Amino acid sequence: MESKSYMVQMNGNGVHSNSVHSFNINGDIYSAKMKIHKKRWNIRASEMSKNTLNPIRAIVDGMKLSPNPDKAMIALSIGDPTVFGNLPTDEKVLQAMKDAMDSHKYNGYAPSVGYQKSREAVANFYCSPEAPLEADDVILTSGCSQAIELAISVLCNPGNNILVPCPGFSLYKTLAVSLGIEIKHYNLLPEKSWEIDLQNLESLIDEKTACLVVNNPSNPCGSVYSKEHLQDILAVASRHCIPILADEIYGDMVFPEHTFYSMAPLTNDVPILSCGGLAKRWLVPGWRMGWILIHDRNQAFGQEIREGLVKLSQRILGACTIVQGALEAILNSTPQEFYQDTIGFLKSNSEICFSALSSIPGLNPVRPSGAMYLMVGIEMENFPEFENDVDFTEHLVTEQSVFCLPATAFEYPNYFRIVVTVPEDMMVEACSRIREFCQLHYRPCNQESNDLDQ
Amino acid sequence: MESKSYMVQMNGNGVHSNSVHSFNINGDIYSAKMKIHKKRWNIRASEMSKNTLNPIRAIVDGMKLSPNPDKAMIALSIGDPTVFGNLPTDEKVLQAMKDAMDSHKYNGYAPSVGYQKSREAVANFYCSPEAPLEADDVILTSGCSQAIELAISVLCNPGNNILVPCPGFSLYKTLAVSLGIEIKHYNLLPEKSWEIDLQNLESLIDEKTACLVVNNPSNPCGSVYSKEHLQDILAVASRHCIPILADEIYGDMVFPEHTFYSMAPLTNDVPILSCGGLAKRWLVPGWRMGWILIHDRNQAFGQEIREGLVKLSQRILGACTIVQGALEAILNSTPQEFYQDTIGFLKSNSEICFSALSSIPGLNPVRPSGAMYLMVGIEMENFPEFENDVDFTEHLVTEQSVFCLPATAFEYPNYFRIVVTVPEDMMVEACSRIREFCQLHYRPCNQESNDLDQ
Ligand SMILES: Cc1ncc(COP(=O)(O)O)c(C=O)c1O
Ligand SMILES: Cc1ncc(COP(=O)(O)O)c(C=O)c1O
Repeated sequence: MESKSYMVQMNGNGVHSNSVHSFNINGDIYSAKMKIHKKRWNIRASEMSKNTLNPIRAIVDGMKLSPNPDKAMIALSIGDPTVFGNLPTDEKVLQAMKDAMDSHKYNGYAPSVGYQKSREAVANFYCSPEAPLEADDVILTSGCSQAIELAISVLCNPGNNILVPCPGFSLYKTLAVSLGIEIKHYNLLPEKSWEIDLQNLESLIDEKTACLVVNNPSNPCGSVYSKEHLQDILAVASRHCIPILADEIYGDMVFPEHTFYSMAPLTNDVPILSCGGLAKRWLVPGWRMGWILIHDRNQAFGQEIREGLVKLSQRILGACTIVQGALEAILNSTPQEFYQDTIGFLKSNSEICFSALSSIPGLNPVRPSGAMYLMVGIEMENFPEFENDVDFTEHLVTEQSVFCLPATAFEYPNYFRIVVTVPEDMMVEACSRIREFCQLHYRPCNQESNDLDQ
Repeated sequence: MESKSYMVQMNGNGVHSNSVHSFNINGDIYSAKMKIHKKRWNIRASEMSKNTLNPIRAIVDGMKLSPNPDKAMIALSIGDPTVFGNLPTDEKVLQAMKDAMDSHKYNGYAPSVGYQKSREAVANFYCSPEAPLEADDVILTSGCSQAIELAISVLCNPGNNILVPCPGFSLYKTLAVSLGIEIKHYNLLPEKSWEIDLQNLESLIDEKTACLVVNNPSNPCGSVYSKEHLQDILAVASRHCIPILADEIYGDMVFPEHTFYSMAPLTNDVPILSCGGLAKRWLVPGWRMGWILIHDRNQAFGQEIREGLVKLSQRILGACTIVQGALEAILNSTPQEFYQDTIGFLKSNSEICFSALSSIPGLNPVRPSGAMYLMVGIEMENFPEFENDVDFTEHLVTEQSVFCLPATAFEYPNYFRIVVTVPEDMMVEACSRIREFCQLHYRPCNQESNDLDQ
């Protein structure tokens, strides 16, 4: 019960003081020897732990977030669709879990790659004539995060590099850098609905490039790529023989007028590790159920990558067996209306947000087509009081109690990200507060230029 | 649905044949360029994946296991107490899970180190006056395996070494080697109920030693250390300022006449990461609920190791939120009788096994005091037909359909391990078959020596 006080005393460099030495109780037999041999404690955290960077935490922890006491806080920053209670998962999903519990069949160890039956269910769910899948092509993981970790770990050695989107989900960098793998950011183009700048992408490839990460639909952009754009991306990968890590955790979460194309069916030669999971579409991120789909019709991965993935899966094992036991029923019994309702809500909320922010001088929201996010450009030159997006969003909290994640957290300054999963009334209220904030601080420039900084 | 046939065609070296080149569909625009620039696919599995070794799989996969068709197979090899259905978890444990589900509160993301309330529950459960614990001292993980992974990852850099027991649980080596960390085996002494050979232990310590792993109660030995022995081990660690990873996943699983001592309360100066979880004592290994308890009353870990653990926990997140949500109730509502019944069964079964095997010429079982295992020495010189423990256990399958894990899988030849969780009648039957097998193959030596090979 006293550990807090130790924390305060701690000198922070890991070498304890002499007074602590005198606490030693390790017996008389050694006390003579100790005078000679006793070394000093000098325990350092590993390089790997020090190299495990979390850009979002780094930015947010450095911000002064003191909401206006007169206004209730509205957090548009949390990529967890469950926090406000307005987006519960489907009853069938919960029932599948209870059935799995009641069967008493899913308390023991599963194979490290997951139960065969559950892998088969995922294979069937995502199978297509162009990109067939069998149970053996599926590895179940502890969330999509572990899927990404295994994919990067099997494809890359320290000293290799991977190509990741900018702006993009920060986990790719966190995982890669902690493993001694370099990352190179390729640009997305806001003016082209966040399509990849293919020339820029191609210019980054070198002989050390081990993997191209494509996130579609995208966090933080809410973008959904056309079939043609995906084919263009695949052509680059094919030309340079770079395998693809397709982060498709938001797969199928696209607004009705758009179509989601998974990458694998669009290529015969580029090998793809498609990473997904239950987190977003089924609205249960805490359950940590993810998967890797191995697409390799060209035998470019061969047995070696498959075996490597199996070996890596044995390090700490994957998903909770109850969720694995429920997986088949979850995939096969969740009604279409559930998916449609979720999408309908996300679309409607993002429309509300997009149109509200579009009419605010100084802001340039980019219309999303799916996922749960929306990026908003800030014309920084028209908000001279603020240094950058971090400063801007910090003041938005202080004055309006609205928190949006500054896109510097995605290595993309002068934007902020909005999560569109909050209840509609909160979204409306948040947008009107953002309007008030911008109106107060907006200073029209002399130039007519409407260019974004970025 | 055709992926099997691809597997057969595969050339296995990751470079595809020319015929596969002609499959390329990546569009005409690049076809001219491709003739010049098109590289060949040459995807290799990473060093890390190749260095992820699984000694048990390596041994077992290499064995010819063809049971005698006239006798039903009895596997005494599986360290999963749930497989035979005779050791269900407690109803309160299942109820706690259902309550967590029904609350609808545990579907979203938990903090990467776990819910505060759940960490607090673990802290309270394992708190003692000598080794106080608060929620902040607890990190929830995906099984004890991830606890061990985080502990090793935060304490060690590539090039460091860790000291692990021999015989011992193979995961320490699997994890360490995959991270470029060396392992050094210290000897356990079967004639002293598997106590550590302290001289041998101490002789292995060098300036690169980053951590001492102590597994008590032990897999594969079923040994339980006395307070005095643990204090002796702590004295070695203290003298050389080596932190301890205490793998206490079998904590409290000791037979009634023995006492389990957790290491942390026995020292004031040696910092300890105690790894545990629900897997064994609560009989739900598939649920992947583990934890690290940080004991650091001497400030030797300091803030640095704590922060390192938090950072590492953010890489892929930990345990399923439903299990986290149920944790407090699981720890506080499971009735004492449940624990006692489990222990009673394990003790009775291991007694049956130990006394049956003790009377078989050529075998030297070592009496266990806890956990779920028992090691049996083979007097190889008296079984001249068999080369080693692997050969011996392979023939035991062929002739008697009884499978015991050869202890070569624990780097300890000429022993085999028995798991004592099987139903009693299977245990009795297995022992009598082992007797028949040994009687058939035993050839008394000329010498009177009863020494074990090892
Ligand atoms: C693009 C992207 N990939 C992967 C993940 C991780 O998913 P999981 O929670 O299943 O690990 C997220 C979570 O926010 C994400 O946004
Ligand atoms: C000694 C020891 N430590 C750790 C573990 C791993 O436990 P978990 O299944 O919780 O990862 C085991 C599992 O058999 C074990 O025997």
